[in-house]
Amino acid sequence: MSWEDKIRKVVPYVAGEQPSGKVIKLNTNEFPYPPSPMVATRLYDMAQDEIDASDNMLRKYPNMDADKLVRAISQVYDIDYDKIFVGVGSDDVLAMAFLTYFNSDKPILFPDITYSFYDVWAEVFRIPYEQKPLDDNFFIKKEDYIGKDCGGIIIPNPNAPTGVLEDVAFFEDIIKNNPDCIVIIDEAYIDFGGKSALPLIDKYDNVVIVQTFSKSRALAGLRIGMAFSNPKLIKYLKDVKFSINSYTMNYPAIEIGTVSMLDTEYFNKTVNMLIKTREETKAELKELGFKFADSKSNFIFATHEKVPAREIFTKLKERNIYVRHWNKPRIDNHLRISIGTDEEMHTLIEALKEILN
Amino acid sequence: MSWEDKIRKVVPYVAGEQPSGKVIKLNTNEFPYPPSPMVATRLYDMAQDEIDASDNMLRKYPNMDADKLVRAISQVYDIDYDKIFVGVGSDDVLAMAFLTYFNSDKPILFPDITYSFYDVWAEVFRIPYEQKPLDDNFFIKKEDYIGKDCGGIIIPNPNAPTGVLEDVAFFEDIIKNNPDCIVIIDEAYIDFGGKSALPLIDKYDNVVIVQTFSKSRALAGLRIGMAFSNPKLIKYLKDVKFSINSYTMNYPAIEIGTVSMLDTEYFNKTVNMLIKTREETKAELKELGFKFADSKSNFIFATHEKVPAREIFTKLKERNIYVRHWNKPRIDNHLRISIGTDEEMHTLIEALKEILN
Repeated sequence: MSWEDKIRKVVPYVAGEQPSGKVIKLNTNEFPYPPSPMVATRLYDMAQDEIDASDNMLRKYPNMDADKLVRAISQVYDIDYDKIFVGVGSDDVLAMAFLTYFNSDKPILFPDITYSFYDVWAEVFRIPYEQKPLDDNFFIKKEDYIGKDCGGIIIPNPNAPTGVLEDVAFFEDIIKNNPDCIVIIDEAYIDFGGKSALPLIDKYDNVVIVQTFSKSRALAGLRIGMAFSNPKLIKYLKDVKFSINSYTMNYPAIEIGTVSMLDTEYFNKTVNMLIKTREETKAELKELGFKFADSKSNFIFATHEKVPAREIFTKLKERNIYVRHWNKPRIDNHLRISIGTDEEMHTLIEALKEILN
Repeated sequence: MSWEDKIRKVVPYVAGEQPSGKVIKLNTNEFPYPPSPMVATRLYDMAQDEIDASDNMLRKYPNMDADKLVRAISQVYDIDYDKIFVGVGSDDVLAMAFLTYFNSDKPILFPDITYSFYDVWAEVFRIPYEQKPLDDNFFIKKEDYIGKDCGGIIIPNPNAPTGVLEDVAFFEDIIKNNPDCIVIIDEAYIDFGGKSALPLIDKYDNVVIVQTFSKSRALAGLRIGMAFSNPKLIKYLKDVKFSINSYTMNYPAIEIGTVSMLDTEYFNKTVNMLIKTREETKAELKELGFKFADSKSNFIFATHEKVPAREIFTKLKERNIYVRHWNKPRIDNHLRISIGTDEEMHTLIEALKEILN
């Protein structure tokens, strides 16, 4: 047996392109507005702290529990401290959740068209899984998940990349009819007009909600994700996380994340700006002949009635406008268009007019 | 089968205490001097970038490969870009390395007295392992590792918490006599007078070297670790990492890590200051009746000829001086004392004089 046989070999997740230079980037669902102005203020203060050597923080290990950040989340969400977990982006939170909660020989369930990291985590952690097909209008068929003898369930709400939102009752039905497995609701995009299932964590013992700072809080570059559940499930998650890395949240993430979380006024204002732009974009895309399920996220998953998605994707890229396209069955004629600023969306619509003519 | 049966339950690693307030902290091997002054400058510039919305970086996903940081490491170490991997502290790097390279049914080998995270990672990832006892002077017995049919080998150099350093030939012997498994050398403390085994990555195909920014580079709060190996092994490690989290290194870590790495003059100056303090502390501890293997790290692992370690530990803590003590067989009469500033070590020595009298 050579060392080659002792290596874990996997096919990693492929993220959206991160082009540099002057482009319009509507391909990775980043928030188009800057984070709270408190972020810059905190960065200045951190620089000052480093100069004042008596209050030098970067040389020391950060607080393991990211205490300050978790307290800020607890305050803003009005959720107990011990029901909150934080990680390096919701990807880290979800990876730890897969490892912790999906630890049986039974298959876990998730949609066939969904966040394309789920099957990657299942593969790397050797978790059996079954992908349940969405219906032809890209809706989740609830009956596929109700009362199944499974290892766990994960569903994003709104789903990605379809943008389709379900209501809380939809998930409550799944959770209460699967009392013997953990149900994770991935709410990465919930802040753009959806209603969170957060109240369910106090009603059922088998539900975990995951959210992120990368979308509505404009901090994808800082890498902060959150999980919410009952204290028992949060404790299990922490035990696994602390068995892998004691200090995942670095000092800048804790500090900047805290001031961002506390600035709820800025958060509400910019999220509302995005929603307004999204609704205007929907109207314009419809006028240009695009079809899409109604989106309550910060992206629109659209197909054109005449022109193939691949062709539009390529022609937009030639104009330095990046949207997302997957060469995958069932969705290869769709484009996922992130909502940018009004100006960016105007440029996009003008480009689409040219391309479609 | 209830959901409780589907949970991965583990006993996590326990890190050294992080007391707040005015204490002398010699318990987690942090560097006593602040990081490079370029760090504060970069923080100021980052604050300015955030204000200048056209160059706002935190809202965007960071570069997946932490390209800028890896290029800085490549330049300073004079090692090819594709032989370098970075992660969220060396704990993250080591956890990913365990998951990637130790993927067989055969036991991996490491010392019985060593970094206490190794068995935690083995447990959480279900990797069989065997702990090889150090000799009575806390030296690694090389024959325990030579030509064994094992799943892999990991040894820190210098070893922790003993501080004992071995030379490169010692590891070369192990590496070349175990061509069928991966040998990881954990060089977290190599910069304090040891000689790195880095040249071996070009001579053997089965060796991985891990280092960190948390000790000699004074950036424990930033969470940066590095692995060095041949491009093939680095690629396997990246595949696993990118199957768990696409963006582990946040924007502040990439930016601040880069300027820190490039300031080699400051690095050399402060490391030499620490070594000088360590040598002086050794002489003083010996005078007070402490015994220890010679240390080439930023800590001293010492036992006193008369007074029990536990008693010294407690009495130091009463004086707000924190060192590390483990209630573990073979080492429960030892203290691990991190090297602080001259002033901190002076206070420690004075306190020890009081306690021992």
